Amino acid sequence: MGKLLFAFVALGLLATTVVIAADSDPINDFCVADLTSPILFNGLVCKDPATVTGADFAFTGLEKAGDTNNSIGVAITPGFAGVNFPGLNTQGLSVARVDYAVGALLPPHTHPRATELLYVIQGELYVGFVDTNDKFYPAVIRKGDVYVFPRGLVHFQFNIGKSPAVALGVLNSQNPGVQLMANALFGAQPTIMDAVLAKAFIIPTSEVEIIKKGFGA
Amino acid sequence: MGKLLFAFVALGLLATTVVIAADSDPINDFCVADLTSPILFNGLVCKDPATVTGADFAFTGLEKAGDTNNSIGVAITPGFAGVNFPGLNTQGLSVARVDYAVGALLPPHTHPRATELLYVIQGELYVGFVDTNDKFYPAVIRKGDVYVFPRGLVHFQFNIGKSPAVALGVLNSQNPGVQLMANALFGAQPTIMDAVLAKAFIIPTSEVEIIKKGFGA
Amino acid sequence: MGKLLFAFVALGLLATTVVIAADSDPINDFCVADLTSPILFNGLVCKDPATVTGADFAFTGLEKAGDTNNSIGVAITPGFAGVNFPGLNTQGLSVARVDYAVGALLPPHTHPRATELLYVIQGELYVGFVDTNDKFYPAVIRKGDVYVFPRGLVHFQFNIGKSPAVALGVLNSQNPGVQLMANALFGAQPTIMDAVLAKAFIIPTSEVEIIKKGFGA
Amino acid sequence: MGKLLFAFVALGLLATTVVIAADSDPINDFCVADLTSPILFNGLVCKDPATVTGADFAFTGLEKAGDTNNSIGVAITPGFAGVNFPGLNTQGLSVARVDYAVGALLPPHTHPRATELLYVIQGELYVGFVDTNDKFYPAVIRKGDVYVFPRGLVHFQFNIGKSPAVALGVLNSQNPGVQLMANALFGAQPTIMDAVLAKAFIIPTSEVEIIKKGFGA
Amino acid sequence: MGKLLFAFVALGLLATTVVIAADSDPINDFCVADLTSPILFNGLVCKDPATVTGADFAFTGLEKAGDTNNSIGVAITPGFAGVNFPGLNTQGLSVARVDYAVGALLPPHTHPRATELLYVIQGELYVGFVDTNDKFYPAVIRKGDVYVFPRGLVHFQFNIGKSPAVALGVLNSQNPGVQLMANALFGAQPTIMDAVLAKAFIIPTSEVEIIKKGFGA
Amino acid sequence: MGKLLFAFVALGLLATTVVIAADSDPINDFCVADLTSPILFNGLVCKDPATVTGADFAFTGLEKAGDTNNSIGVAITPGFAGVNFPGLNTQGLSVARVDYAVGALLPPHTHPRATELLYVIQGELYVGFVDTNDKFYPAVIRKGDVYVFPRGLVHFQFNIGKSPAVALGVLNSQNPGVQLMANALFGAQPTIMDAVLAKAFIIPTSEVEIIKKGFGA
Repeated sequence: MGKLLFAFVALGLLATTVVIAADSDPINDFCVADLTSPILFNGLVCKDPATVTGADFAFTGLEKAGDTNNSIGVAITPGFAGVNFPGLNTQGLSVARVDYAVGALLPPHTHPRATELLYVIQGELYVGFVDTNDKFYPAVIRKGDVYVFPRGLVHFQFNIGKSPAVALGVLNSQNPGVQLMANALFGAQPTIMDAVLAKAFIIPTSEVEIIKKGFGA
Repeated sequence: MGKLLFAFVALGLLATTVVIAADSDPINDFCVADLTSPILFNGLVCKDPATVTGADFAFTGLEKAGDTNNSIGVAITPGFAGVNFPGLNTQGLSVARVDYAVGALLPPHTHPRATELLYVIQGELYVGFVDTNDKFYPAVIRKGDVYVFPRGLVHFQFNIGKSPAVALGVLNSQNPGVQLMANALFGAQPTIMDAVLAKAFIIPTSEVEIIKKGFGA
Repeated sequence: MGKLLFAFVALGLLATTVVIAADSDPINDFCVADLTSPILFNGLVCKDPATVTGADFAFTGLEKAGDTNNSIGVAITPGFAGVNFPGLNTQGLSVARVDYAVGALLPPHTHPRATELLYVIQGELYVGFVDTNDKFYPAVIRKGDVYVFPRGLVHFQFNIGKSPAVALGVLNSQNPGVQLMANALFGAQPTIMDAVLAKAFIIPTSEVEIIKKGFGA
Repeated sequence: MGKLLFAFVALGLLATTVVIAADSDPINDFCVADLTSPILFNGLVCKDPATVTGADFAFTGLEKAGDTNNSIGVAITPGFAGVNFPGLNTQGLSVARVDYAVGALLPPHTHPRATELLYVIQGELYVGFVDTNDKFYPAVIRKGDVYVFPRGLVHFQFNIGKSPAVALGVLNSQNPGVQLMANALFGAQPTIMDAVLAKAFIIPTSEVEIIKKGFGA
Repeated sequence: MGKLLFAFVALGLLATTVVIAADSDPINDFCVADLTSPILFNGLVCKDPATVTGADFAFTGLEKAGDTNNSIGVAITPGFAGVNFPGLNTQGLSVARVDYAVGALLPPHTHPRATELLYVIQGELYVGFVDTNDKFYPAVIRKGDVYVFPRGLVHFQFNIGKSPAVALGVLNSQNPGVQLMANALFGAQPTIMDAVLAKAFIIPTSEVEIIKKGFGA
Repeated sequence: MGKLLFAFVALGLLATTVVIAADSDPINDFCVADLTSPILFNGLVCKDPATVTGADFAFTGLEKAGDTNNSIGVAITPGFAGVNFPGLNTQGLSVARVDYAVGALLPPHTHPRATELLYVIQGELYVGFVDTNDKFYPAVIRKGDVYVFPRGLVHFQFNIGKSPAVALGVLNSQNPGVQLMANALFGAQPTIMDAVLAKAFIIPTSEVEIIKKGFGA
């Protein structure tokens, strides 16, 4: 469980950090975020435009492979306005590199505030989303392909190839949010009462307890 | 399982019917939907404004209690632009009445395109949502209280009172979407492969098969 | 006039308090307003997310009946992000309970920035709005019914039942604004010159003076 | 009353004609409206782009003075996407020329879906709007000045100069709507019941009847 | 070159000053900008609403002719929320007066964040825009005419009349931005390398150097 | 010139095909475009949702390198809702693969309706944009890096590496538009008069004629 917890803690930290961001239309040419500002609102304060250079709009943090040596075998490297790419502030986009070990799954999740376009840099992924009619839309995509996950719908990516896979996700919000559903439900803090989860999944509460343990709850 | 399936099929029909709707700003005073139009786009065609009267903006479908005599003990009665309340077309709102039997749960779900404000008409509900850090925000609300579920985040309502409960949900999209997470994952058609769900919930595939059966998959 | 003035002053205070709010799309999971912040802009500053709990999203202020013992016999109890329900900040919704004495009228008014959905909790209301062609859309709605007032158009509610009425209004802006037309025109401060109102209503200025007195101007 | 009715009928026709229009962001370079299309929705159908020329984006209809020889002494000449300037379709703007006889008033009105910027081409106008606190913001503006009327708030223009005045209004919606408040309330069809107007304006119903006659109701 | 540089410097200052502004929907009745606030974000801080009067919404800065005695013979006088007309803050509009000497050209430029409606106050202008298919849409417009330049597309105005011309531009963003293309490409600082411009315009680098000199680069 | 014309004609065809698209918020789970519909509006008609499968959301058209054997040495392969990737309709995103021969330049251009995030798949690019103050923001980016070009501002990419380069552009509009500035100005049809271009670039008309020839005008 140690590694598993590690992976989720990392994602949790990400979410904590990016919780202050904003997505109305840009009003200025740009507004490179000042990540040191203490003001919290539906957006990020700009740094002085006179100090901005071309380097503020370039981001090199996606070059290196993320470390997939964790319990789920997936590493997400973000390029987010509120975390490490302040040049994206007010521009309505975010980006992330995803590394998948062989056989690894980026588990079913939603982005509450964005559509995602996923580009396969390397490998072969089995992907899909479920619509609000519980209809599933699977596909296998390979290097050079893209797949679109409509706004807010639950989806996943599964590395079914024989080698590690790498993908680039681009989303149309500067802070799209990531909600891993199994974690949100079975790993929430404070914990969601067993009766709720037992009814929801039509399982005994003893089974709920078992699943919760998997998520460290 | 029959009742269970019935309940989910009913929700499925709802989603199918409302799949054609739209939420940009209104441009006209109103655009009462013509539900007979064959044109499908990001919105609904208007009926002839000359035929519109006050009755088009009133909706009486929420007066009667829904029938909670089904497997989950919950009945959702929508007032949606694309289903039964065409006067809401282009106005950016939808409404639903929810009836809960004693002990019933409206299971964890998301609205991919809206925030929801829930007003308790009668009874006592244990409600909550989970944020993208897996932090849970529970509360008990009673007759006359409201609770806000932020856009896109997973949430539920549980009737913990000694009598049936009734609530009114108002959402800021004319077609917010409803995605019941357990159903979307374990009841999807075509079915999501066991390996994905086993990894996601950290359970054996045998357990996945058991849960899937609960959802008729 | 005392009671009348009291009622309008109360509404005026409400408007003053909520004058600082904002409605672009949410960027964060939530941004519970810090109503003590001195910064005024097109929105409200967030309180520290680490201090937020489920209680921030529940609002119990609508349980109690408002006091309709005033000149118009109507009491409006708001649940607004900028006034008393900071959890609604950035979520694009506001709510209000309206209590109507027997025979009371919520006079013709507009919401400059929102569509309203009105749900009748108790009683019987004669409601309607007027479109930009001066066509009137009346209806009688009773307990359990809803009516939609399109964005920005003038509308009213009149308790024509034999008992007090109660309704819940939900609007798709966190600060929709309320402009009571007779008050805005005849009770404005500084006062609108008589000649303007006389021409507008095609009445003598002596009659304008009489009506102004009704609004304390 | 004949002339008065004529003026209002003319405005009514305008509103009828423009009732089909739309204001989401443009997606194409342009979408010149095909005003012959029978399809009604939250927008206007485009004509074939291959037939579009520079002439579609020029509008000469504002050159000539409107005829102010009517009961209110005001003539509004629109340049609206849905009426006579199809090149504005999807571009989020509308325009109108207003001619004011000496002493004429464009009576208090709202634009339910837009902010207006008014430019004085000739003459001197006393203008103002009322906010949702019933505070009035008057000003005198002369040739070359502009004044901004915030979205949805009631406002008017009064020619207090010694000569006819001319102004240009530009609004940030392709179909902003115009609701003349006295007409909407006292001239609505079907008529608003006297009791409502009497209560709203704190006048006897006999006075309501007198005012209604002024609006042909 | 002195005058030319002066003209461009003036435009440059304008852009520098307005770089802090914002265009989501208004949430308040108004938010008159406090141009002394040090906070930089996707908008402008409001001044205390209690100090706001009608004068804040009137702007007299467009009455006087701009001085066209510069190298391009064109003077732009802005009425911008972030520069000199703080009442426009949050209202989604900006305005400018343009004076053109005989034979003067307002060179090809874009507004990255707005559509423009141009009204001819005096004179005769040859105007046009180019779409993304490189199709040109020219027209000659005269006193009283308007022309619409679709969002983001390159356009110009040329005074082909026998007398000075004056026009009023209204744009649907409070900070639309102005990018003069020849200046942006040949006058940028730091300078764009000759090889890029030579390839782009299919000219020798020696010619690039000549053109750059025209822009003081 | 033959190859040059070929390249531009190809881009022109692209623009013609995509001229019918739309970017308001999605209202449905999805709306896969029916590219055979004759209806033109600010969006694309949906195909029957019952016929939609996972394959509609996958796009394999970016796998193959574009043919850079043309006059500018650049090939753009789009994945656009209105052209070849109908699953992107209503989802607010578009994508393109760009192949650059050694030494090739994607010339200065704007996207009138979107911000672009560019990811380098292979090679080394010198990129930059110019803001509305004529300040230039250059950077060199290499395999794995991203760069953001703010909405509407002129920018370019230049292959300064020793091998062919490949990049992926993702833009936050389903039809962002592409306006190559040299082509738009010197290659427009009908042609822009020499006097305009001579004044704009401060060059003799003889030089304008020479540049126009380069663009086949």
